[in-house]
Amino acid sequence: MDMSDARGTRERLVVVGGDAAGMSAASAARRLRGPDELEIVAFERGHFTSYSACGIPYWVGGDVTDRDRLIARTPEEHRARGIDLRLRTEVTELDPGRGRVRARDLASGTESWTSYDKLVIATGARPVRPELPGMDAPGVHGVQTLDDGQALLDTLAATRGRRAVVVGAGYIGVEMAEAMINRGYEVTVVNRGSEPMATLDPDMGRLVHRAMEGMGITMVNDAEVTKLLTGDDGRVRAVATEEAEYPADVVVLGIGVQPGTALARAAGLPLGEHGGLLTDRSMRVRGHENVWAGGDCVEVLDLVSGQERHIPLGTHANKHGQIIGANVGGSYATFPGVVGTAVSKVCDLEIARTGLREKDARRVGLRFESVTIESTSRAGYYPNASPMTVKMLAELRTGRLLGVQIVGREGAGKRVDIAAVALTAGMTVEQMTALDLGYAPPFSPVWDPVLVAARKAAAKIRAAS
Amino acid sequence: MDMSDARGTRERLVVVGGDAAGMSAASAARRLRGPDELEIVAFERGHFTSYSACGIPYWVGGDVTDRDRLIARTPEEHRARGIDLRLRTEVTELDPGRGRVRARDLASGTESWTSYDKLVIATGARPVRPELPGMDAPGVHGVQTLDDGQALLDTLAATRGRRAVVVGAGYIGVEMAEAMINRGYEVTVVNRGSEPMATLDPDMGRLVHRAMEGMGITMVNDAEVTKLLTGDDGRVRAVATEEAEYPADVVVLGIGVQPGTALARAAGLPLGEHGGLLTDRSMRVRGHENVWAGGDCVEVLDLVSGQERHIPLGTHANKHGQIIGANVGGSYATFPGVVGTAVSKVCDLEIARTGLREKDARRVGLRFESVTIESTSRAGYYPNASPMTVKMLAELRTGRLLGVQIVGREGAGKRVDIAAVALTAGMTVEQMTALDLGYAPPFSPVWDPVLVAARKAAAKIRAAS
Repeated sequence: MDMSDARGTRERLVVVGGDAAGMSAASAARRLRGPDELEIVAFERGHFTSYSACGIPYWVGGDVTDRDRLIARTPEEHRARGIDLRLRTEVTELDPGRGRVRARDLASGTESWTSYDKLVIATGARPVRPELPGMDAPGVHGVQTLDDGQALLDTLAATRGRRAVVVGAGYIGVEMAEAMINRGYEVTVVNRGSEPMATLDPDMGRLVHRAMEGMGITMVNDAEVTKLLTGDDGRVRAVATEEAEYPADVVVLGIGVQPGTALARAAGLPLGEHGGLLTDRSMRVRGHENVWAGGDCVEVLDLVSGQERHIPLGTHANKHGQIIGANVGGSYATFPGVVGTAVSKVCDLEIARTGLREKDARRVGLRFESVTIESTSRAGYYPNASPMTVKMLAELRTGRLLGVQIVGREGAGKRVDIAAVALTAGMTVEQMTALDLGYAPPFSPVWDPVLVAARKAAAKIRAAS
Repeated sequence: MDMSDARGTRERLVVVGGDAAGMSAASAARRLRGPDELEIVAFERGHFTSYSACGIPYWVGGDVTDRDRLIARTPEEHRARGIDLRLRTEVTELDPGRGRVRARDLASGTESWTSYDKLVIATGARPVRPELPGMDAPGVHGVQTLDDGQALLDTLAATRGRRAVVVGAGYIGVEMAEAMINRGYEVTVVNRGSEPMATLDPDMGRLVHRAMEGMGITMVNDAEVTKLLTGDDGRVRAVATEEAEYPADVVVLGIGVQPGTALARAAGLPLGEHGGLLTDRSMRVRGHENVWAGGDCVEVLDLVSGQERHIPLGTHANKHGQIIGANVGGSYATFPGVVGTAVSKVCDLEIARTGLREKDARRVGLRFESVTIESTSRAGYYPNASPMTVKMLAELRTGRLLGVQIVGREGAGKRVDIAAVALTAGMTVEQMTALDLGYAPPFSPVWDPVLVAARKAAAKIRAAS
């Protein structure tokens, strides 16, 4: 045990991972308990803390010009609040049995144990990187961390060619497609699924597909990448699938992430079927009195399906951090679960979803009716009223709302919040038809598109009953 | 009884008032029951049917260039669906005892009785017009009907001066202020209240006040209009209050409306304390088996206060019409009530409210905590993130959400829908802190402004408990 572990009668909180969940937890705990009561040690293997990973596509695309604007709170700010933050220090082992973690100083390579009274695991997610030839070639970039973003920008600055291939068409993939378009690249998106945005049903994904093509993005669906081809200089030169090769001066990997739970797994902590840590409602790791976990490394309860899911998203990580901090700090808070809301955009196309897709509902034994309607963001006669498509699923018999998907332009995406609250409240689509939503011609047609969908869904449920 | 009353064994539905509620009811009933089963006679004293009165400010302001775009369905379209629509025909008496109405053909002046099996009263609202000298002078205009809007536009075309005075600073007043600014007028708004937008608490109204001044609108508060001054030509030339005179080339009255229930009152139908018809949940007039009423002439149940209110708004009128049509047509539907959601804008300022203001809560015996927060429409680092202020009221002890008010720029207004659904569901502010709202940097900060307000409100409720 090295000197860093020396301490008095104060409790010690150790936080593993210095991004949204971890540092929110540390900050919230600090607000409740001062440095004389609670020592807080936070380990972070990277160079940064508390940054918006969700903002990286907009930094790469040029909408955000200054990297530091993505940083919500700097290491210095955390330290000024009495948090012993150790950057470039990677935790290599969790030992919940003896209440300690082992960490390696990445600069010196020295390792030491630090004991804790309370532990917060916030190890985030790690990018899915299929083991394919050429995956590590220069010119191939992930976009999970600020370091990743900087490396990609350095490559763009040094690359003369203007052909970008984005692998993956989930939200990171489509956001990076926009970023590369904004940078003046010719963009091809290579997608394993039948349509982009697999978080939508394929009929709604097709709308995204068409819109992306309308933006000049080449969309290649049903395409499994087999290898990345490199040139004589060792740099990537093309992405190969079984059918074709797509020339690339730069390749962006947007293939998604998995829970970063290797340490937790090695320590025997409980993991769910998606590989994320399992917690109780207070975000405490199941069966471990003094260990909490939150953010991209945990599974969360889906309130609609009743099952656990892995949803890496900054807004959840921040909530988890607040809740963990409250509980660690001696207050009380719980995280009831999620309904699976997500919103993203590609150029001026807005894409949103909440609740269950058709296949999700089937998988958990729910039978449903599905409706799709077209409406507009504003009264039809008002300038810039833009079209939107709303798909809604409702359970047979009960009429309970199961999910909503929206594809449209300006004003479409955040309408999903109406459905997110209705799902949380367990509303039926019939109840939704009477919702008192904000109406004025610049904001909505006299029947909001979500109400139009609810009316059609309610009629279909009645007809089926 | 004249020939128009001859009929066979079909039931006859008589609709009084041919705008949103009345014609929606007629159309919905027609979809359920064909002309061989149900005769539908609709009386409308004006020239138009089914138009968006809410759109008039945008037509006057020039955002909407074609009046006919405000008309959702023309008289010809209604007639093609088998509705016997009688324009320029004013109902002058309701006789529920004998099941008939008397109507006057405004062109010929002839009156006749029409009997009904079922009656729908959709007589709308009438503008509040204080009896002041000069009120009927040329150059003084209301904006309730399409005819009003056309008359105002005709005046604007014929008027050389560029000074407009808007009387009233409710949503019609502020929308008309925008319209006149857009037409290039120098605009003064004369307002009886201490701040514009009395549907907000004064502290939020003050934000609107300041923003309007920033747009170059002269805002005069605490000012009661005593008379309208006219020139030698008889046209209006100024608006006078006790303190001052405001020169005016045109005066727009935006003082609000009252339920148009003179006929209902004369017929002994039940009216509430705000002068609106009282209905049951099926929109049937209380105590009258075969009479329904909806739209701006009825009072609606406020689900938050538990009391009746008068809220003239197209979106409610359309819902009422659908519900009445279903019930009249032999199906079943109910209107549970409202939470008092409204959204409007003045130029780029968005104003929204739902639920109770402080004085509403006090009036119904509710004690509460109130919080106000500042946030932004998008992540702070994202381009065009615009500031917004959110005020939230929550009940003491229960923590139940009581109301939300929002003043901001683009992206602020429709966020009120989150609160509208939460109010409908009876959520507590603590429950709201966990809402799974759509997050991505172009759409929201990582904590949506509504969540920020909910967190602060929940903390205040806990501290008070």
